[in-house]
Amino acid sequence: MTTSTALLTDHYELTMLQAVLASGHADRRCVFETFARRLSGGRRYGVVAGTGRVLEALRHFRFGEAELTFLRERAVVDDRTLGWLADYRFSGDIWGYAEGEVYFPGSPVLVVESTFAEGVLLETLVLSILNHDSAVASAASRMTAAAGDRPCIEMGSRRTHEESAVAAARATYLAGFGSTSNLEAGRRHGIPTAGTAAHSYTLLHDDEREAFANQLSSLGLSTTLLVDTYDVTAAVELAVELAGPELGGVRLDSGDLVSQAHEVRARLDALGAHDTRIVVTSDLDEYAIAALAAAPVDRYGVGTRVVTGSGHPAAGMVYKLVSRENSAGRMEGVAKASQEKTSVGGRKFALRRRSTAGIAQAEIVGIDERPQDDGDDRELLVPLVRAGEVVAPTDVHTAREHHAEARAELPLGALRLSGGDPAIPTRYLNDWS
Amino acid sequence: MTTSTALLTDHYELTMLQAVLASGHADRRCVFETFARRLSGGRRYGVVAGTGRVLEALRHFRFGEAELTFLRERAVVDDRTLGWLADYRFSGDIWGYAEGEVYFPGSPVLVVESTFAEGVLLETLVLSILNHDSAVASAASRMTAAAGDRPCIEMGSRRTHEESAVAAARATYLAGFGSTSNLEAGRRHGIPTAGTAAHSYTLLHDDEREAFANQLSSLGLSTTLLVDTYDVTAAVELAVELAGPELGGVRLDSGDLVSQAHEVRARLDALGAHDTRIVVTSDLDEYAIAALAAAPVDRYGVGTRVVTGSGHPAAGMVYKLVSRENSAGRMEGVAKASQEKTSVGGRKFALRRRSTAGIAQAEIVGIDERPQDDGDDRELLVPLVRAGEVVAPTDVHTAREHHAEARAELPLGALRLSGGDPAIPTRYLNDWS
Repeated sequence: MTTSTALLTDHYELTMLQAVLASGHADRRCVFETFARRLSGGRRYGVVAGTGRVLEALRHFRFGEAELTFLRERAVVDDRTLGWLADYRFSGDIWGYAEGEVYFPGSPVLVVESTFAEGVLLETLVLSILNHDSAVASAASRMTAAAGDRPCIEMGSRRTHEESAVAAARATYLAGFGSTSNLEAGRRHGIPTAGTAAHSYTLLHDDEREAFANQLSSLGLSTTLLVDTYDVTAAVELAVELAGPELGGVRLDSGDLVSQAHEVRARLDALGAHDTRIVVTSDLDEYAIAALAAAPVDRYGVGTRVVTGSGHPAAGMVYKLVSRENSAGRMEGVAKASQEKTSVGGRKFALRRRSTAGIAQAEIVGIDERPQDDGDDRELLVPLVRAGEVVAPTDVHTAREHHAEARAELPLGALRLSGGDPAIPTRYLNDWS
Repeated sequence: MTTSTALLTDHYELTMLQAVLASGHADRRCVFETFARRLSGGRRYGVVAGTGRVLEALRHFRFGEAELTFLRERAVVDDRTLGWLADYRFSGDIWGYAEGEVYFPGSPVLVVESTFAEGVLLETLVLSILNHDSAVASAASRMTAAAGDRPCIEMGSRRTHEESAVAAARATYLAGFGSTSNLEAGRRHGIPTAGTAAHSYTLLHDDEREAFANQLSSLGLSTTLLVDTYDVTAAVELAVELAGPELGGVRLDSGDLVSQAHEVRARLDALGAHDTRIVVTSDLDEYAIAALAAAPVDRYGVGTRVVTGSGHPAAGMVYKLVSRENSAGRMEGVAKASQEKTSVGGRKFALRRRSTAGIAQAEIVGIDERPQDDGDDRELLVPLVRAGEVVAPTDVHTAREHHAEARAELPLGALRLSGGDPAIPTRYLNDWS
């Protein structure tokens, strides 16, 4: 673990820096834009997540002696560049969609205004964080939408890199999950944590009766007993025999969850345990959650599928130079011209067009010009960094509230799980390209 | 960033600990086994990666004052458990497949022998690391096999969590990649790093001529020029005009790479630049690399697909209690009985059965008993930790050599990219379950 985030960066950002320091163009004013060309898997909306982590990482983006020594010894860049890096502090401005905001193809989710040299260095780190966290949050939001009022618990730490796990817990909480199994996420981000016992706990004991009795005695009657180690029906009866109707919950982690949930609910009710919750946890994703909507399930524990973005582990965001000072000192839109990966040049501004009833209708993107608010619209780009200073909240709790509000504004069709068009169209104003 | 890795752990590992400390079973001798029930996507073999990182993480798995304070304030566990955690040092033994080894369904890739309390705490961290790193290495190994003698460059940092990026660079290098774009991976793991310039660099300049001339002047003639910002043919001609036949390389990042590679090679040769390399980098995976085998390409830059496991971002490994001391003090195999997620109980031993010519023929797994070596076999479980002390190498270079040797032993069919059966079968001896 390192305190500096500066080397979480692609080699070529530094070689480009060396070349522009030599050529004299390092200080040209530039605008770099982060956007996604499309939404993964025909989804109806994406969720911006990671912005707060980008801002925290920016504070630690410093080339200290350890980083400079590595770069010198490996001859990554020349001495002049090392000297420049030693003094590096990002001093530009960053605008962006508030963390938790929904986004669509072409939404300018992060806009960096700085010299080329200062802005180009941030590309890799910005994209790593936004692509990961937004992929997880975009999947998680579909799951919480499918789950309705039933809480979702994130428990995928074991299925992703140990630090991604902490970020994934944060991104799922942002998107409405109620808790996580990840203790570090609890500590670092203040997210509620949850958990009781695994099959290994039951198997350690001589029999299930001993295992359950010990768990109830140590963790209390409100605990959740895992009932599918041996025979589910027998385990449910044993659980209520030992705990009585005060038993907090039972967990099912295998088998056909729909039919089992009905059977277990009927059994619990027959035993008088009407308030005992049923938690299900086996390979869930948004589709499995939707399929359980009519089953008597109280909580969903989601693992692999949410931390890996439910089939789309990276959000597909790119960080592109869209405008720069020309030799006459004037800003000029730029874009790669060849082949299929085109971008729209120019500094972007964005509004969410809303009906008088407050329902989102379109993403309006102005190029080099702010679109006109028609009275019910919402400005999407908010200041995140001014002259190098972070000016926006970086905590997940603010982002969580914002996401709930932004999602609630979408037309109902946005919550469909089937693949299709984005929930609202993106309209560019003044696009002369 | 935190020095202690102890909270990179699921909440329930600690509540289980509390319950077993109370019940008196915390000190029962146990064997926990990490294995995969199947290979992702019908692949022919998997690659064990992350073992070295697990061992490094184990050294920092300590509950210090900061961790204990968090657990106390959140009432995750009771005071007795906190006291036990304060003194926690893993004191057991760990055996495992050497990092870089290939594995098959049921291969016991990591075997932890300790008390229940000591071993259960490691579950989440072990799985996070092995599932991530093995997923990336398994995909990467297929890519390097498809690439043959042509070097692969890992450049996917921007498509995965910023710390996963460092681990992914390590896993791809293990699997035969030649270099990475990730500077932190260069520093932390001693992996060669590479990179030159992006489209933003070219777009910053008034024209491509100025951009190329500056890059050549600053980075030298051996640099690689990105030739698809505007018109590829014009850019190739300009590149050779400015650099001469000494030009190191040109990079193609869009379009139909097969036809473009032929065109660009012909143009370079016509201009006398016979030694100028062609690097291709657009959305490559093992299939795209194979499709380019007959094209005049010199290097492959691989991003998104390798760092996200080429469609399979988690290796599907699980950590199961397979044997434990019973009330009579004797070790006894255990396994979950209900539903579909069954395991094979008992302490495992493993041999790679080889023909007299040294070709792998089967994975032989003994249960509670070491299989007989027939003379050409290879022992797969090596000691990693003895009485709490790490006794195996943890560096990626050793693992890289081991992977090359282990892969070379597989029958030729193992390198097929099509989905199908594992390259060799797994045979259990003495399975009375």
